[in-house]
Amino acid sequence: MKMFRRLFTFEDAKRAIEKHFKAKPLGVEEVPLLEACNRVLAENIIAPLDIPPFSRSTVDGYAVKAGDTFGADENRPVKLMLCGTVNVGEMPKVKVERGTAAEIMTGAPIPEGADAVIIAEKTERKNGEVYVYAAVAKDENVMKAGADIKRGGMVAKRGQLLGAREIGAIAAVGFSKVKVYKIPRVAVLSTGEEVTEPGKSLAPGKVYDINAYSLSAAVVESGGKPVYLGVFPDDPNEIENALKRALTLADVVVTSGGVSVGPKDVIPQTLSLLGKPGVIVCGIATKPGKPTTVAVLDGKPVFALPGHPTSALLIFYLLVRPIIKRMAGKQTVETATLKAFSSTRMFSARGRRTFIMVKLKRDERQRFVAEPVPTGLSGAITTLLRADGFIEIPKNQQFVDAEEEVTVHLLRSLRNINV
Amino acid sequence: MKMFRRLFTFEDAKRAIEKHFKAKPLGVEEVPLLEACNRVLAENIIAPLDIPPFSRSTVDGYAVKAGDTFGADENRPVKLMLCGTVNVGEMPKVKVERGTAAEIMTGAPIPEGADAVIIAEKTERKNGEVYVYAAVAKDENVMKAGADIKRGGMVAKRGQLLGAREIGAIAAVGFSKVKVYKIPRVAVLSTGEEVTEPGKSLAPGKVYDINAYSLSAAVVESGGKPVYLGVFPDDPNEIENALKRALTLADVVVTSGGVSVGPKDVIPQTLSLLGKPGVIVCGIATKPGKPTTVAVLDGKPVFALPGHPTSALLIFYLLVRPIIKRMAGKQTVETATLKAFSSTRMFSARGRRTFIMVKLKRDERQRFVAEPVPTGLSGAITTLLRADGFIEIPKNQQFVDAEEEVTVHLLRSLRNINV
Repeated sequence: MKMFRRLFTFEDAKRAIEKHFKAKPLGVEEVPLLEACNRVLAENIIAPLDIPPFSRSTVDGYAVKAGDTFGADENRPVKLMLCGTVNVGEMPKVKVERGTAAEIMTGAPIPEGADAVIIAEKTERKNGEVYVYAAVAKDENVMKAGADIKRGGMVAKRGQLLGAREIGAIAAVGFSKVKVYKIPRVAVLSTGEEVTEPGKSLAPGKVYDINAYSLSAAVVESGGKPVYLGVFPDDPNEIENALKRALTLADVVVTSGGVSVGPKDVIPQTLSLLGKPGVIVCGIATKPGKPTTVAVLDGKPVFALPGHPTSALLIFYLLVRPIIKRMAGKQTVETATLKAFSSTRMFSARGRRTFIMVKLKRDERQRFVAEPVPTGLSGAITTLLRADGFIEIPKNQQFVDAEEEVTVHLLRSLRNINV
Repeated sequence: MKMFRRLFTFEDAKRAIEKHFKAKPLGVEEVPLLEACNRVLAENIIAPLDIPPFSRSTVDGYAVKAGDTFGADENRPVKLMLCGTVNVGEMPKVKVERGTAAEIMTGAPIPEGADAVIIAEKTERKNGEVYVYAAVAKDENVMKAGADIKRGGMVAKRGQLLGAREIGAIAAVGFSKVKVYKIPRVAVLSTGEEVTEPGKSLAPGKVYDINAYSLSAAVVESGGKPVYLGVFPDDPNEIENALKRALTLADVVVTSGGVSVGPKDVIPQTLSLLGKPGVIVCGIATKPGKPTTVAVLDGKPVFALPGHPTSALLIFYLLVRPIIKRMAGKQTVETATLKAFSSTRMFSARGRRTFIMVKLKRDERQRFVAEPVPTGLSGAITTLLRADGFIEIPKNQQFVDAEEEVTVHLLRSLRNINV
């Protein structure tokens, strides 16, 4: 007995999800700046002070009035009276008057009265006097207060991913904590009578779970925190309890298996009972991924992915990952892509948007070549392991021809692809 | 008073480091597979069983002897006696004899006697009999035991970075734990009388620390665990104690500041006291990065980087990051690169390998263009924030010309560059 299903096009499915669930950051938390690497900034960082906070010397040498060095050269040094020393990290205790010079270190504040620094290499010190063998212009070797960043200037913007440079810049203006977006929690569970958790012994007729593991890792890679719930049999009560628990513990729920057309596919039925509006997408016109079911239950999205590991991961990348990224506050949610040439003619499935897993190679001209990875039921794991990315054939296009340029959506960073 | 320094070329510096310190994984630890995302596998994973472990049906339908369906079509169905049902997750209790068929679910084991499965859509069931409206070939709709992975086959290799797909494949063969390489601990400290930890109030003449923060984040980005030790004044005893503590707590030590030629530059002197062979590189012929000092102290490398934030981070990327990656077990240690066209003529520093920070843009032909970011002392933070990467000019080359193709070493993933 086949249930009636209205298959959504891929675009309609995305629109239906967007209509019922606005993916946006979940909230803000303050974390130590030292722990903020790879988080997304949730506030604008405005410099509360000039950087540098005071005019400072950029060399070791002598702080002088530039006018006093006028005409000095290697043969006719100007003689200045040493009036004191300015060390880094302290305010100058001396004032540079006409005809005097203060010894100064790199990074030390320019003392009152001085407007330039002559580098030590162009001076000589004898008996409390400084011989200056070159003229300096006003402001030479001086980094003025605010030259790097003016007080009130923008150092980092809400929505930026924090890396080494951003964190350094935020430290520079004195912050040791920052507000970042909360990390979305994503509950992951697998279903199926035959599915056994890895690490347990395998009874006859059973297989080990793949999806809860691969999808938990995919959640990490998307910037979310996986909440692993394990494997549940196809029993409506157990599934209902597992989904209720998942909705309590997490912001998004991802299940796999239990969504094809067999008599034991209880996920879609159960989802309708658990909240409003319930199931919003029940099958999409893609290959693979046709049985994909999506529900929104009182503000939380639930993605019921197919049981086939490559299909589950592909639909995760296409539908779930952009939502997790957006909830994590990230501004770029698309998968990285790369142009390559098709190694062979690749056919689409009639009337369905078709995704084909490919491996990247280089041809003799060093161009990227996308080669289809044999998929299908007999290669669940091997496909998963060999694919570097996937290409897409629109539903009304019959095939991509050999040598045709294709866009490869990368499953891993190019750095980790051996081409 | 200028200390004598023998400047190493960049290559000589790398060779000297390689000679005294072999960067290799620190050891192995076992972690739950669910927590292994982004770790590096330290063992070969060999399948201890066939995947699938038994021949299974790939559809819902009836397990039959293929020979019994010979000649069946829509007009002339073959009639078979229903002999039982095989559910997923359990071993079949029935045997399929000639002239019989067993109901079977997707994923359920093929019962004894059957050698094919006819899909439910091509059958009809009436009064304990199954009408078969199509012929099936031997093995049709059957996934044979071991078809995906044979027992003894390689699932994942030592040295692989673990992502969603690898973790899924390892789960498939039943592992819930894996051996991964230990994460190298990298102690990070800043020096300087004027340097103040962010979050504290800033006394006159002081500046906030940037480097210990940016370098700690760069350690995370390289696959290491930063051990932040804070800021120390230019006092030989304090520096010595800090370095001793760093060497106790970490596998690698990174300092910044205290390595130019001022009288207070105590790091090189102190390093020589702390272990063998002591300082091995004291100044390199690069711009920036000239004062970079490297020591190896009883088997642990210490990198004393310049105080200028962009220089410190650049030398970290060039010298330290590949070593951390190698210690973390990673096989690819190079920075990702990209070809671009120079926007303008960029000059090298005479006799020194020169690195120029660049920002990426696109020209009207959508080609990448590398534009130098104004650097120097007045733009420590702004340079850091604006640069997408850097280019390199060999020491014997005067300049890179406008429109010339250059290799840009990326400071961030291309995904996060707004071009």
